[in-house]
Amino acid sequence: MSKRNIRVTDPVWKNYKELVRKEMIPYQWAVLNDSIDIAIERERNDDSIPNEKSHAIENLKIAAGLKIGEHYGWVFQDSDVYKWLEAVAYSLLDTWDDSLKALADEVVELISKAQEPDGYINTFFTITGLERRYMRLAESHELYCMGHLLEALVAYNMAAGSSLAMEIAAKLADHLCDTFGPEEGKYHFADGHEEIEIGLMKLYHLKGDNRYRDLAEYFLKVRSDSPKEWKRLKAEDKGGDILGGISSEPSKYNQTHLPVEKQDTAEGHAVRVVYMCTAMADVAEASGNKDFAAACRNIWRNIVDKRMYITGGIGSTVLGESFTLDYDLPNDTMYCETCASIGLIFFAKQMLKLDRNGEYADVMERALYNTALSGMALDGKHFFYVNPLEVVPQKGKLDPTKSHVKSVRPEWLGCACCPPNLARLITSVEDYIYSVFDDAIFVNLFIASELEPDENGKKVFIKQKTDYPRSGKVLFEIDNKEEKETTIAIRLPGWTDDAKMSLDGTAYKPTLKDGYMYVPVSSGEHTIDFEIEIKPKRWYANLDVSEDIHKVAVARGPQVYCVEEKDNGSGLHRLLLNKESRLVDHYEEDLLGGVCVVEGDGERCTDSSDSESIGGLYTDRKEYKKETVKIRFIPYNTWGNRGENEMRVWLSEE
Amino acid sequence: MSKRNIRVTDPVWKNYKELVRKEMIPYQWAVLNDSIDIAIERERNDDSIPNEKSHAIENLKIAAGLKIGEHYGWVFQDSDVYKWLEAVAYSLLDTWDDSLKALADEVVELISKAQEPDGYINTFFTITGLERRYMRLAESHELYCMGHLLEALVAYNMAAGSSLAMEIAAKLADHLCDTFGPEEGKYHFADGHEEIEIGLMKLYHLKGDNRYRDLAEYFLKVRSDSPKEWKRLKAEDKGGDILGGISSEPSKYNQTHLPVEKQDTAEGHAVRVVYMCTAMADVAEASGNKDFAAACRNIWRNIVDKRMYITGGIGSTVLGESFTLDYDLPNDTMYCETCASIGLIFFAKQMLKLDRNGEYADVMERALYNTALSGMALDGKHFFYVNPLEVVPQKGKLDPTKSHVKSVRPEWLGCACCPPNLARLITSVEDYIYSVFDDAIFVNLFIASELEPDENGKKVFIKQKTDYPRSGKVLFEIDNKEEKETTIAIRLPGWTDDAKMSLDGTAYKPTLKDGYMYVPVSSGEHTIDFEIEIKPKRWYANLDVSEDIHKVAVARGPQVYCVEEKDNGSGLHRLLLNKESRLVDHYEEDLLGGVCVVEGDGERCTDSSDSESIGGLYTDRKEYKKETVKIRFIPYNTWGNRGENEMRVWLSEE
Repeated sequence: MSKRNIRVTDPVWKNYKELVRKEMIPYQWAVLNDSIDIAIERERNDDSIPNEKSHAIENLKIAAGLKIGEHYGWVFQDSDVYKWLEAVAYSLLDTWDDSLKALADEVVELISKAQEPDGYINTFFTITGLERRYMRLAESHELYCMGHLLEALVAYNMAAGSSLAMEIAAKLADHLCDTFGPEEGKYHFADGHEEIEIGLMKLYHLKGDNRYRDLAEYFLKVRSDSPKEWKRLKAEDKGGDILGGISSEPSKYNQTHLPVEKQDTAEGHAVRVVYMCTAMADVAEASGNKDFAAACRNIWRNIVDKRMYITGGIGSTVLGESFTLDYDLPNDTMYCETCASIGLIFFAKQMLKLDRNGEYADVMERALYNTALSGMALDGKHFFYVNPLEVVPQKGKLDPTKSHVKSVRPEWLGCACCPPNLARLITSVEDYIYSVFDDAIFVNLFIASELEPDENGKKVFIKQKTDYPRSGKVLFEIDNKEEKETTIAIRLPGWTDDAKMSLDGTAYKPTLKDGYMYVPVSSGEHTIDFEIEIKPKRWYANLDVSEDIHKVAVARGPQVYCVEEKDNGSGLHRLLLNKESRLVDHYEEDLLGGVCVVEGDGERCTDSSDSESIGGLYTDRKEYKKETVKIRFIPYNTWGNRGENEMRVWLSEE
Repeated sequence: MSKRNIRVTDPVWKNYKELVRKEMIPYQWAVLNDSIDIAIERERNDDSIPNEKSHAIENLKIAAGLKIGEHYGWVFQDSDVYKWLEAVAYSLLDTWDDSLKALADEVVELISKAQEPDGYINTFFTITGLERRYMRLAESHELYCMGHLLEALVAYNMAAGSSLAMEIAAKLADHLCDTFGPEEGKYHFADGHEEIEIGLMKLYHLKGDNRYRDLAEYFLKVRSDSPKEWKRLKAEDKGGDILGGISSEPSKYNQTHLPVEKQDTAEGHAVRVVYMCTAMADVAEASGNKDFAAACRNIWRNIVDKRMYITGGIGSTVLGESFTLDYDLPNDTMYCETCASIGLIFFAKQMLKLDRNGEYADVMERALYNTALSGMALDGKHFFYVNPLEVVPQKGKLDPTKSHVKSVRPEWLGCACCPPNLARLITSVEDYIYSVFDDAIFVNLFIASELEPDENGKKVFIKQKTDYPRSGKVLFEIDNKEEKETTIAIRLPGWTDDAKMSLDGTAYKPTLKDGYMYVPVSSGEHTIDFEIEIKPKRWYANLDVSEDIHKVAVARGPQVYCVEEKDNGSGLHRLLLNKESRLVDHYEEDLLGGVCVVEGDGERCTDSSDSESIGGLYTDRKEYKKETVKIRFIPYNTWGNRGENEMRVWLSEE
């Protein structure tokens, strides 16, 4: 059994982790086994979405020959189990649990039995006919599922030292190396949904086998050539569509419109884009592929400068769950899938290895504290797939173009990619706190924690003590056991103006570069007192975002805030935040698990009684009456926890 | 050959009529015959929409046994021909044309040959198999097409006295009376798309045969009972779907959710709702059905008070081309189908027979001058299906949820219901000017024209002389040849405050009631000088319309105005109209066929150079720079005639 070199001590994050361990993991296990009576909602009005049950474990049992039956569910249903296993692995690293470990071992055993002798694994094709494997890779998600399996096995091996996990992984990876690649006689195409590249890179980082890195790089390089091969094999395949609709999507949908290294805008299915970039940045760092690094920087710029919601949400449209165009950020029809923001966090983490720039961590933190955490209810058992910035519950029910915009988190979703993705993120949040280089340790996130380097690591111990983001004070207790000076580079978030710092009790003015404050620390023990002001602030969108013009959003530190009907009455569009009023915050322990509430003076437009109207709908006299109100904001990630109600991030301002 | 009792003399409307006669009718004829090389666009991204050709005449020829081939196109493709014939009929009443009459006779002959011996007619089922007729009436539009045929035949008989047209109509109507009705052994259900009821009522008004009125009433009464019969027959039918997707629509989609007389909100497919109401109001007036009248009033109130765009557009969503919920009026994703506003005009016209209330005419005029006329380009050869209130061309191209929002009128549409509907409306616009009752003549629209009563009519001659809406002056020259006093009731539009009137040269203060100014005129010749102020005015939406809060629309008389990129640069959302500035209008003869342009002082928000930003997309300093601009508005119905560009009706105001 391995041990983590970072331990989260922050009570809020420990609580999230416990929620995952005690609620989400058992709950998801019950769902995967169809042993719980819950309402599985379709993520939008679409009769083709399977929503009767999960059947994911059953599919594995059937594929393993332990049961007789038919495959049920999405073609990528296996990945739900793999992501669950990955979350279990990380959770075991937090809190050892023999019975959970035994359960995970059973799952690994089951996976091993479902794996074909040659290393291939996919329950859909094993059950429905292996002769079609890899014939419909634009739709079939086979490598996508295998990528998640590799991630899970690597994580589980780290957590529990499972040799069986490593056997499965090696057998699978070797099968892939034998089957795909530039050599003649191998397949020359990638999966329609990126993910295998991430899995292969994880295995590469663990084992150091260059074949895995090279295959990941190959899948990326061959991406834009894949459609013609997909088409060729589809023509040979006798069977019907594996996943209807995907074949009519434009090439941008799966990022095959241009060679990946030539792409400089984020196009198509948002999760795919950020998974692709995560792998591309990782490969770039590992292999020195400069074209990949440049493409990642360009796509990043496009997302962050032009295509990202203030909540760190991405994907402006439900159709194709896709990016659309620059500055197109509608607040009430968007997608902002939980998985997409999680993928953006993965991408940011990889970019932090390539470039020492705090902006990556700023975005990582924005996506983490807002859209990612919004994906889960406070009970750990209800989940959003789509994270809107503006909700009127009746519109989601009565306007079919908004059927994906739910106002209360469902118990489970027909496409259940998001909940287990969030579980694995929360249980591994420590991996995002630091970037460790030979010459410096970069502090990306402020989460109370203890860093104890492992045997091969740099002998620098760091304790972060903070209740961030409730306050902006962070104390770093550093024990540099190296014999030479090292550098601690602390992120100065882009959303604040300046920070106070003292080193060993004396005011210290560090060098600031690209969003990091560089603090050299000699051998021995040191303390860094770091403080940034965390207060409610107003934010405005770029003028090209037509939906947000003349509107204001409120944030407090990294957390974006919103207004809910529960606190402010219905008709939230009628609220006007006074431009000059002071925003005041206070902590409410009993509200939503304990949150800082923000209040500001404003007005509510009320009907004019003296208006001359045409049938009541249009009037030629603009005499809005207004009443003074106190507008109450809560953190965006806690919305929708008090029953169905309106919610809004961007408010009118006066 | 018949003659109309009203003749339009207004040059603008005569020009529209000539455009239909000289451009639209020949153009549509070429399209219906597939003899013109044009780009037929799908009305939205949907591969199932047929767009290779029209094939409508060919379908008739095949059904008539004159050609061999397959049916192509929508199942309701026949109706394109019938609406063309109806427009031809009205056009012949305007301007006799032997060769057009000969062409129309040929079409009537062809229709006669395509009709089955028992009176049934539908090319789809005649070609693909009559054994399935009426088996799938939720989807198949058979009665819908027949309704359009009856309308066309009645119109053509009026124009050209065609006995063959009357034979076809009688044979068809008798077939329907034999096939549908409350009696045992007949079918007890209606068509999924209302229209036959309108056709039957037109035949009833011509022939006075109560069976036709009663059958129209029966179709309406049996409407909500239809789904169970549809379902029963669908189960018996061996064939596949006639029109995929419709069977999964909710019952509101085709107004079967409640008995029609119990419906008090406008639900589902917008065209269907207003066609239903048109027939229901007509039946109510003809048969005295008070429940129908009450339902019409309730649905009218719901549309006009809560579900209608300022342009008279209806249908807030593309999915189902439907109404959604009260005050849900998004400007950039709406449907606002041309046909739906035309149907609203039909509905209003019928309501004017039931209730003497100018509001019906206000709405009729609003729909006519804005959304209906917007449906056609100034060249008479390009058409909008969807009439948005806010367009950014790239969004329609790159956001698939806006694929139906086109920024330039296509040459033709896969579903070609709108162009011929508009043609028949324009060629019969005189029918909407007056409502004639025994005791009074109501003036609903101000269009220069001459009313000469036919032999059975009231002997009152009215000449309207006006260039309305360019000015608000209307001179009525009245010759009351009756021996007693009669009343002329002139509409005072709801959008104006008051009017000046003089009777026979002397100032006159008429009684004003429900939007009409009642002027008694004795026998003999009289003049009424009527003047309302037509100047640019600002309009505001009800506060419950969240999309329009803090925004202003400009109208001039009945015409809603808009801003186009062509006049105001790109980024129209950045414009702010100054609240206090005076809106000034002037006529530009060479612009868009001659229009009154409106100008107002405003500002354009420009980027702030000193903003501190997060990656350029979100900033904490709201320092919009502004530049002073003259904002230039054009009539909404003329937008999109100068190439692809942005357009917007609702502007920010400051």
